Amino acid sequence: MRNDKNKESVGIVTPATCVINEPLSLDSGETLESYEICYETYGTLNSARTNAVLICHALSGDHHAAGYNRIDDRKPGWWDNCIGPNRPLDTNKFFVVCPNNLGGCGGSTGPLSKNPSSGKCYGPDFPIVTVRDWVESQARLADELRIESWAAVMGGSLGGMQALQWSVAYPNRVRNAIVIAAASKLSTQNIAFNEISRQAILADPNFNNGHYNEKNTTPTDGLKLARMIGHMTYLSDDGLRAKFGRERTDKNTSFSFGAEFEVESYLQYQGDAFVNRFDANTYLLMTRALDYFDPAQNHGDDLRKTMASASARFLVVSFSSDWRFSPARSREIVRSLLYSNKDVSYCEIESEFGHDSFLLPIPDYHQILTKYFQGICT
Amino acid sequence: MRNDKNKESVGIVTPATCVINEPLSLDSGETLESYEICYETYGTLNSARTNAVLICHALSGDHHAAGYNRIDDRKPGWWDNCIGPNRPLDTNKFFVVCPNNLGGCGGSTGPLSKNPSSGKCYGPDFPIVTVRDWVESQARLADELRIESWAAVMGGSLGGMQALQWSVAYPNRVRNAIVIAAASKLSTQNIAFNEISRQAILADPNFNNGHYNEKNTTPTDGLKLARMIGHMTYLSDDGLRAKFGRERTDKNTSFSFGAEFEVESYLQYQGDAFVNRFDANTYLLMTRALDYFDPAQNHGDDLRKTMASASARFLVVSFSSDWRFSPARSREIVRSLLYSNKDVSYCEIESEFGHDSFLLPIPDYHQILTKYFQGICT
Repeated sequence: MRNDKNKESVGIVTPATCVINEPLSLDSGETLESYEICYETYGTLNSARTNAVLICHALSGDHHAAGYNRIDDRKPGWWDNCIGPNRPLDTNKFFVVCPNNLGGCGGSTGPLSKNPSSGKCYGPDFPIVTVRDWVESQARLADELRIESWAAVMGGSLGGMQALQWSVAYPNRVRNAIVIAAASKLSTQNIAFNEISRQAILADPNFNNGHYNEKNTTPTDGLKLARMIGHMTYLSDDGLRAKFGRERTDKNTSFSFGAEFEVESYLQYQGDAFVNRFDANTYLLMTRALDYFDPAQNHGDDLRKTMASASARFLVVSFSSDWRFSPARSREIVRSLLYSNKDVSYCEIESEFGHDSFLLPIPDYHQILTKYFQGICT
Repeated sequence: MRNDKNKESVGIVTPATCVINEPLSLDSGETLESYEICYETYGTLNSARTNAVLICHALSGDHHAAGYNRIDDRKPGWWDNCIGPNRPLDTNKFFVVCPNNLGGCGGSTGPLSKNPSSGKCYGPDFPIVTVRDWVESQARLADELRIESWAAVMGGSLGGMQALQWSVAYPNRVRNAIVIAAASKLSTQNIAFNEISRQAILADPNFNNGHYNEKNTTPTDGLKLARMIGHMTYLSDDGLRAKFGRERTDKNTSFSFGAEFEVESYLQYQGDAFVNRFDANTYLLMTRALDYFDPAQNHGDDLRKTMASASARFLVVSFSSDWRFSPARSREIVRSLLYSNKDVSYCEIESEFGHDSFLLPIPDYHQILTKYFQGICT
C-alpha cells in the first residue's frame, strides 16, 4: 500500500543484524569482545560490489533511514526523502547501507544490550565510544558485506563527522565523502549545550546513575529536557518565527506557566515524542562522541595536515541559517581540503530551517545531491 | 576600605524599603493590597528633584546595582562599573535609584514574602507580574520619593523593556529613556529558551509545585539547569571560543561525563553560584514577564503607533554578538521611533561578549553612556 502511495519509496524494509566476533579496541582503552551491528540496505549491490553507499546517522538517528518497516508505519525512515528510486541517492543505481551506531538504541550493541560479563544490560557501563570507534566498527561491517570500497560515505551533522573520519582513516575505501552540515570539531558553545543536556539527564532522580532499567524507572523528564535543548539548536530564529511567531494556544493570556505560546506546546510535543523512542544512556554517549571528535588534535591542531591523507572526492554542504554547525565550520573543512589540493565541491544552501535543513527536501540541496550522485562512477 | 581601593565606587550602601499601601491592580486581574519595594540610591537628589535616574534590572538582577553592602563584600553591585563618581552614570551629578522588582527575591514583595491572606510565604501563589506592573509599582515608588520626572530611565535586557514601557506609560515623567540590549518583544526562540528553563524547574521533584519552602526542599537542580540554559544565551559563540576554546580541565581524556572541558566546569560553577542567591519561583515569574512583554499588542502590532505617545529622548544601544536580543531587534525600536520623529540616538557596539556585554565596561560603550549622560540637563 505504501508502495502505491509513494512510488519512489524503497517500500518495506527489514533490518538485518551482523554479528562481529573480532574484538574492537576502543579509543577509551576498553575492548568490545564481540558486538552486533543492526543495519538496513536499500537497492542492490552490483556484481563488482562497487556501488555501495554508506549512510552515517546523527545523534538521534538510527539504521532506519528509508522506507517503512511495517505496512502500517505512519512515518518512513529519517532520510526517506533523500534515498529511494529516482531520489537524490538513487537506489536504482546504488546499494545503500545504513547501520545503527555502536552505543545506539536502535538494535546495535549499546546500553540496552546484555553485557556478557554481568548477564544484565550494559546501561551506564557501556563504554564511551568515539567517531573513530564507529568508523572502525563500520569498516568491520563493510568487511562482512565484502564491500572493499564505498562509492560514497555520506552523513549530516554527526554523520558528516563520520564521513570525514572515514576519508582519513580509510582513504582507499572511500571514493566520495559527502559531508553535510558538519564541523571538524565542536565549538565551545556546542560543547556547552551538550553539557547542559547531559546535566538534565544526570540530575533526573529517575536516572539512578544510569541503572534506570534495573530500577524500573525512566529518566523521562531529563531526557525530554535534553531533547528540547538540542532541538532548539537545530532550528533557526527566523525559522521559528516563521512557523510559530508569538502565536498563542488560546487567545486569552493565562498568567500561568502552562504551554501558552504555540512554540511551547511544540517543544513539549517534541520532547515527549523523543522519550518514547530514545534511551538516555545512548543520548549521553552520543553527545560525548560529538564533544570528543577532533581529528586534527593529533596533527598539531592543523586540519590541513589531518586531511592530507584523504584521497576521496568531497562534497561539503552547509545551510545559511544553521547556527549549530554554521557555514563557517564547513568552510574550514573546505579550506583544509583545498590546501592539500583535494577535489572538493562546496555549496551553502539558502534555508531558514537551521541545522535541521539537512533532513529536509530543499530543492537546491536535493538537486545538488542528485547531480553529485549522478556523477559518481560505480 | 573599599572606598580607598575603588576611588570611584559609591562605597558602602544600605538598601531602603518603601512600603506602599495603595493597592496595585495587576495585569493578571489580581490585586496586591500593599507591597514593599526594596531599593538602593546612589548620589544626592538635588533640591529641584530633577537629577534622578531610575535603573531597571534584568532577569537575575536586583536593587544592588552599585557599591558594597558590607565592608567585606567580595563583589560590588551588578552595574558598579557603570554607576559611581566619574563613572558613565556619574553620581556626582545624578541621584540614582535602583529598585528590586515586584516578584523578585532581593527584598521587594515576592514569592519569598509573607502572603497576608495565608500568613505563609506566597511561594507559587504570588501573582504573575508584567513589565507594565513593574513600571506602575516603580511610579508609586517615584511618588513616594517625590520624584515627578526622571532625568533618565535606563536598563539593559528586561531592564530596557521597562525603560521602553516607562516612556509610553508615563511620557511626562521620563526625559530620557536608555534602552540597552533589549527588544520590543521576545522572539519565538527567546520564548522557547524561557520555556525550557521553566520546564527544568517545574520538573525538579524538589520544586513541589512551588511549595518547596514549606516542604523544606530546594529545586537546586532545576534552577541550576535553568541558569545554565539562560547563561548560554547571554554569551556568544565567538566569546566562548576565545575564553574557553576546547580547553580541558585535565590533559587526559576521561571518557566519562564529568566536567572535562573548561566550559563545562564554568557552566556548572555559574549554575551553582546562582542557586545560592536566587529563588526558583522568582525565576519563573521573571521569564514569564519577558514572554508577555509586547507593548505593540494593543496597537495592532504596530510598534510605531505604540511609541508615538513617548516624549522622551532615546538612546538605544545594541551589541554586535548579542544573539539573544540582536542588533536587529534594537533597530526595530529605532525605526519605530524615527517614524514618529522622536529624538533617538542609536549605537551598535562591537563586542564578542554577547548579551552579557551590557554589563561589561566596554570602552566604546561606556564612552557613549558617559557622553549621553553629560548631555542630560538636570
